[in-house]
Amino acid sequence: MTLEAIRYRAGSLQILNQLLLPHQTAFESITSVQEGWEAIKSMKVRGAPAIAIVGCLSLAVELKNGPQRERDELVTFVCDSLNHLVTARPTAVNMSKAAAELAEFVVQQSKEDNVSTQTLQESVIGWIEEMLEKDVSDNKKIGNFGAQHILSGISQGKVTILTHCNTGSLATAGYGTALGVVRSLHSMGRLARVFCTETRPYNQGARLTAYELVFEEIPATLITDSMVSIAMKEKGISAVVVGADRVVANGDTANKVGTYQLAIGAKHHKIPFYVAAPSTSCDLSLESGREIVIEERPAQELTDINGARIAAPGIDVWNPAFDVTPHELITGGIITELGVFLPSELQAALTGRLTAL
Amino acid sequence: MTLEAIRYRAGSLQILNQLLLPHQTAFESITSVQEGWEAIKSMKVRGAPAIAIVGCLSLAVELKNGPQRERDELVTFVCDSLNHLVTARPTAVNMSKAAAELAEFVVQQSKEDNVSTQTLQESVIGWIEEMLEKDVSDNKKIGNFGAQHILSGISQGKVTILTHCNTGSLATAGYGTALGVVRSLHSMGRLARVFCTETRPYNQGARLTAYELVFEEIPATLITDSMVSIAMKEKGISAVVVGADRVVANGDTANKVGTYQLAIGAKHHKIPFYVAAPSTSCDLSLESGREIVIEERPAQELTDINGARIAAPGIDVWNPAFDVTPHELITGGIITELGVFLPSELQAALTGRLTAL
Repeated sequence: MTLEAIRYRAGSLQILNQLLLPHQTAFESITSVQEGWEAIKSMKVRGAPAIAIVGCLSLAVELKNGPQRERDELVTFVCDSLNHLVTARPTAVNMSKAAAELAEFVVQQSKEDNVSTQTLQESVIGWIEEMLEKDVSDNKKIGNFGAQHILSGISQGKVTILTHCNTGSLATAGYGTALGVVRSLHSMGRLARVFCTETRPYNQGARLTAYELVFEEIPATLITDSMVSIAMKEKGISAVVVGADRVVANGDTANKVGTYQLAIGAKHHKIPFYVAAPSTSCDLSLESGREIVIEERPAQELTDINGARIAAPGIDVWNPAFDVTPHELITGGIITELGVFLPSELQAALTGRLTAL
Repeated sequence: MTLEAIRYRAGSLQILNQLLLPHQTAFESITSVQEGWEAIKSMKVRGAPAIAIVGCLSLAVELKNGPQRERDELVTFVCDSLNHLVTARPTAVNMSKAAAELAEFVVQQSKEDNVSTQTLQESVIGWIEEMLEKDVSDNKKIGNFGAQHILSGISQGKVTILTHCNTGSLATAGYGTALGVVRSLHSMGRLARVFCTETRPYNQGARLTAYELVFEEIPATLITDSMVSIAMKEKGISAVVVGADRVVANGDTANKVGTYQLAIGAKHHKIPFYVAAPSTSCDLSLESGREIVIEERPAQELTDINGARIAAPGIDVWNPAFDVTPHELITGGIITELGVFLPSELQAALTGRLTAL
C-alpha cells in the first residue's frame, strides 16, 4: 500500500498529521485556507514542497465549497489567501514561489474579457491541481531515472541503497525524491534493502523515513549517523541517494547536515553518490556552494528529545541545519525529472542545451 | 576544579553516581565488596578501567575496615571477592584481568614464610592503591605526550581538538586518555576549544564528556555525529583524538562506533588523527583488526531515549557497538604512556625494541 500523506479530491482535502508520527496515523480534514495555514504553522505538515501543495490545496477546497464571488472579489480573495499562507512558514521558499506564480496567474486570467467568474475560479483550482499532479509525476520520473541509472551497470540481482533524512511522501506531494528512487527500485523488484540514518538532531530518518518504509513494507534498516561508514564497509551498499534543499549552478548541493559526511564516506568506499531533486530545487543564479548561507538552529533541538534534556546542562552547542556537498563528491549524478546529469552537465541540461542520457 | 569521579583514601571510597548524570552530581559511599559489585552491576560506574578500579578499591576498603582474619581465611576472602566482582559485568575485561593478577599476587605472597597476616593484608591494599595511582599517572603521561606531539609542529597559538565518546575521568581512574590530552592542552593554555560528538546511540558525549568539560570549564562545543565533517571543514580542527577499546599489533583500533567515520573525515580534510590508549589496551596477540569481533547491541538503545520511543515502530535496526579504524587512517599516531608511536612502530615500542620519540 502506498503511503498517501495528502489525500485530495475536488472539494476535499485530508492530511496525515505528522506531529503524531511515528506513533499514530491520523488524517485530518482541511476545509479552509485558515485550517491550511494552521496545519502548516503547527508543523502538522512539513517539507518545503508539501507545505506549498497543502497551502494551495486548502485554497482550492475553500474556493470549491465557498460562495460564488464577484470577479474582483475572487481575485482579491485568492491573492489575500496566498499572502496569508506564506506567513505560516515564511522561510519555506516553495510556498512563496507558488503564491507569486498563482497570484500572477489569477490577475492575468482576470484581465481576459471573455472569462466568466466561474471559469476564472475553475482555472485557479485547475492550476493548483496541476501543481499537485506535476509534483507527484516529477517525483516518479526522478524515481525511475534514478533507479535505471543505478541499475545501468548491474545486469541482474538486487541493490542496497543508503539514504539520509526524509525525502518521501511526507516531504513532497507524494512518492518522494531520493525515497522515490528507493520506491522505484522496490517496485521493480530490484531493491535488496535500504539503510536509513536516524538524521540527528531532528530524527527525520528515525521518525519519518522509517515510518514510510515500514508502512510500505520496503526492506529497511535504521542506523545512527555514526554508523554510515561501517555500513558502507560491511553491508554492501550499492549507492547513496539523498535529496537536496538547493543545487547550484556548478552542482554543489545544500542538504540536511550530515550529507557532506555521507559523500566523503561514499568516495572513500568508491560507492556512487547521487542527489535526487526536481529542477525546481536547482538554483542557477548561484555559481557555487560557497554562496549558500547555512542556517544555524536552536541548541535545544540537539540537547533535548521529546522535551527531556539529554545533554549536560551548560554545554555550548553548534547546530547547523544544512551542509554543502561539493560537486566533485557527487560521483553518481544529479537525478532530476529531466534525467540524470553529472554536476558539470547540470546547467546545460536545465537550460535546454543538453538532453537527458 | 578537576573532576574526581572516584574519591579514595585509606579505608574510604566514594564514587560519582553516573546514573544521575548529567543532571545531578551525587557521590555515594562504597564500604564493601558487595556495594562495589552493586555499583558496577547497576552501572553507577562504567568504563572498563573505572570498573576494575572501583571493584578492587571496594575490596581494599572492606579489608581495611573489616575484622582481622587468619592467613588462609584472608586469601580465600580476597579470591572469592574478586571472583564475585568479575560477575558484576562479565564482559569488562579489565576487571577479570585485575582479578587474575591480584589473586595470583595474594596466593604467592601468602606462601612466604615470614609474612604476617597483617602484612599480607597491607600488601593487597598496597597492590590496589598502586593500580589506582598507575592508571592516573599513565593517563597524565598520555595527556602530556599527546599534547606535546600535537603542538610539536605549532610554535605558538592555540589548537582546536575534536573527540568522540567519553574517555575522561568518568571512564578511567581519573584524568582520562583522549580527554586527558585535551586536559593537558588546556592546562598548558594551548587549547582554543574542543568539539565533542554526542556519540549516538548511547550519548556518552552529550551526557558524560560534555558534563566533564562544563565541570572543568574547558571551552567545549557539542555537535551531533553527523556534523563532524562540516566541523572539520569550517571550524579549524587541528587534530582528532579518540580513545580505544583495543589496539592490535598492526595498529588497527577498535573503538566506539563512529570512530572509523571520524578517521575518514580527518583524512579527507588532512587533519592528524590520534588514538590515545594505555599499553594495557594494546593486544599484540591479534595481528589485524579483521580478527576483532564487533559486538552488536539491542535495537532499543537506538530506538528509545529515556524510555520514550523515538523511532517508527516495526523498523529493523543495526546497532554495532564498535567499529575498527584501519591503521593507515591513524595518521597522527598512537599515544601511550610510553610515548607516541606510528601504528607501524607500536609492536616494537611495546616489546621494548623501540624507545619513545
